[in-house]
Amino acid sequence: MVLIECVPNVSEGRRREIVDALLQAIRRVPAVRLLDRSSDRSHNRSVITLVGEPAPLKEAVLALFEAAIASIDLRIHSGEHPRLGAVDVVPFIPLEGATMDECVTLAKETGAEVARRFQVPVYLYEEASTNPARKNLEDIRRGEFEGLAAKMASPDWAPDYGPRAPHPSAGASVVGARMPLIAYNINLATDRLEVANKIAAAIRYSSGGFRYVKAMGIALEDRGIVQVSMNLTNYEKTPIFRVFEAVTREAERYGVDVLESEVVGLVPAAALIGASEYFLRLGSFRPNQVLETRLREISAKTERGEPKQ
Amino acid sequence: MVLIECVPNVSEGRRREIVDALLQAIRRVPAVRLLDRSSDRSHNRSVITLVGEPAPLKEAVLALFEAAIASIDLRIHSGEHPRLGAVDVVPFIPLEGATMDECVTLAKETGAEVARRFQVPVYLYEEASTNPARKNLEDIRRGEFEGLAAKMASPDWAPDYGPRAPHPSAGASVVGARMPLIAYNINLATDRLEVANKIAAAIRYSSGGFRYVKAMGIALEDRGIVQVSMNLTNYEKTPIFRVFEAVTREAERYGVDVLESEVVGLVPAAALIGASEYFLRLGSFRPNQVLETRLREISAKTERGEPKQ
Repeated sequence: MVLIECVPNVSEGRRREIVDALLQAIRRVPAVRLLDRSSDRSHNRSVITLVGEPAPLKEAVLALFEAAIASIDLRIHSGEHPRLGAVDVVPFIPLEGATMDECVTLAKETGAEVARRFQVPVYLYEEASTNPARKNLEDIRRGEFEGLAAKMASPDWAPDYGPRAPHPSAGASVVGARMPLIAYNINLATDRLEVANKIAAAIRYSSGGFRYVKAMGIALEDRGIVQVSMNLTNYEKTPIFRVFEAVTREAERYGVDVLESEVVGLVPAAALIGASEYFLRLGSFRPNQVLETRLREISAKTERGEPKQ
Repeated sequence: MVLIECVPNVSEGRRREIVDALLQAIRRVPAVRLLDRSSDRSHNRSVITLVGEPAPLKEAVLALFEAAIASIDLRIHSGEHPRLGAVDVVPFIPLEGATMDECVTLAKETGAEVARRFQVPVYLYEEASTNPARKNLEDIRRGEFEGLAAKMASPDWAPDYGPRAPHPSAGASVVGARMPLIAYNINLATDRLEVANKIAAAIRYSSGGFRYVKAMGIALEDRGIVQVSMNLTNYEKTPIFRVFEAVTREAERYGVDVLESEVVGLVPAAALIGASEYFLRLGSFRPNQVLETRLREISAKTERGEPKQ
């Protein structure tokens, strides 16, 4: 079985009934599992997590586009998080039995069909990218929806699929394939946005920080605090605990405490277990000392008919 | 399916060929899975983790007794860890689909059969105990093998099953049922055993510490350091991170650093994820944000024919 995860980000995080309708459209596709949903009012954005085999996943994404285009209008959308379109980003991620190549193929097929069926321009990104200048999501999204028409007038920004101008209300979409990503935020006990911005600049790859960290400062105005909002794009090489410790140290420099941190959506168990290994100074821990991991290993061996150890 | 875990502790942690022979005896029982083995030279003790359904587990434990009695002689055994017999302790622990009552029944049946077949006296402990004064393993084991004959002369220490005197070479065994336990040790950067002893006394239940902690100081002479050796008997109510933090603070008082900690054998993922929630200050984390947990939940629902959420 080829199991692939798909995590569409849509530009609606305030009107619950709209997000419910999007999920309902996905649920109508058999053989796709809805793993998680998470809406953020400040970002005005929702993150949906699906798992399934390639063909039903593609069908679910097309159903999501149809519902989102009918209910989300970027011309009247506002939120703290950068965005280009109604269905802003659609990454495919290899899980059990799946390869990155299969995810790239699925991204291209889905992107082409979205463009054909809905006249939404589609950019391919990360592992599915066809152009080194358009590998990074941030580069593609720079200028946001409001700057999209001007940006697309340049030959450099002809989309991979679809029309050479934005969809009037749904903008453009970014579709691709990547490794599992952790959406991780650290909230600071201050309302000084410049502190969050300086910390974000210190830790992110683009300005000299950790290789697999994307970060920006965000004001959570309803709570009167600020946030370092991050994507950890490879938790094995840039682990969550190292990022937490670095943000804590940088915050100290401005006399600011870390209030709390949060994972948005799902996180692989290994990322959190790695953090506990660090903080508990576990010296010689093996991943298969985790009871559930060991049980899965043994069951998999038994199914393959290998001898018990 | 009724899945039960069984974690026999045997009094041999130095002669690898002997431990291998014990495991070989277990492997001959079909339908029992050997999850883990862990030997400790200082303790001169091995911890074996098995999973299976009740009937094969009982058969595996009987096979282990037969092999252990043939190869382990307590009259010439020495080690840092208290022990009463060749197969020192045999706890049964409920996993998926199993209740504590089923574990108690299995403990009693297994204990009775061990006594009948091998003439080894058996004490029931924890949830299987028939006597409040003999619920705690430490109380039963006090005096160790060397003091066993004198102890058993008292009517208070008539065993639950078997002869009213120790087996000449294999002593006595303690069989019972309990919740999952974490064998957790913290190594200190000092050779002062009194520091480990004082910290153990500060954190263990029996002398005023945490409700679900058993602890003692141990010298790891081959490494020139000392260890606070613990059993955490309910990681939900007395979590691993709280114990780590308390030991760290107590050690500071004596100018001693924590060198590292270690989990012996298996640990439920939830115990480590709980530690990362604490250290990362995860504010509103839900257990089903863990990808693997969510996948299992969804699969279980699908198997039961419930609608996808």
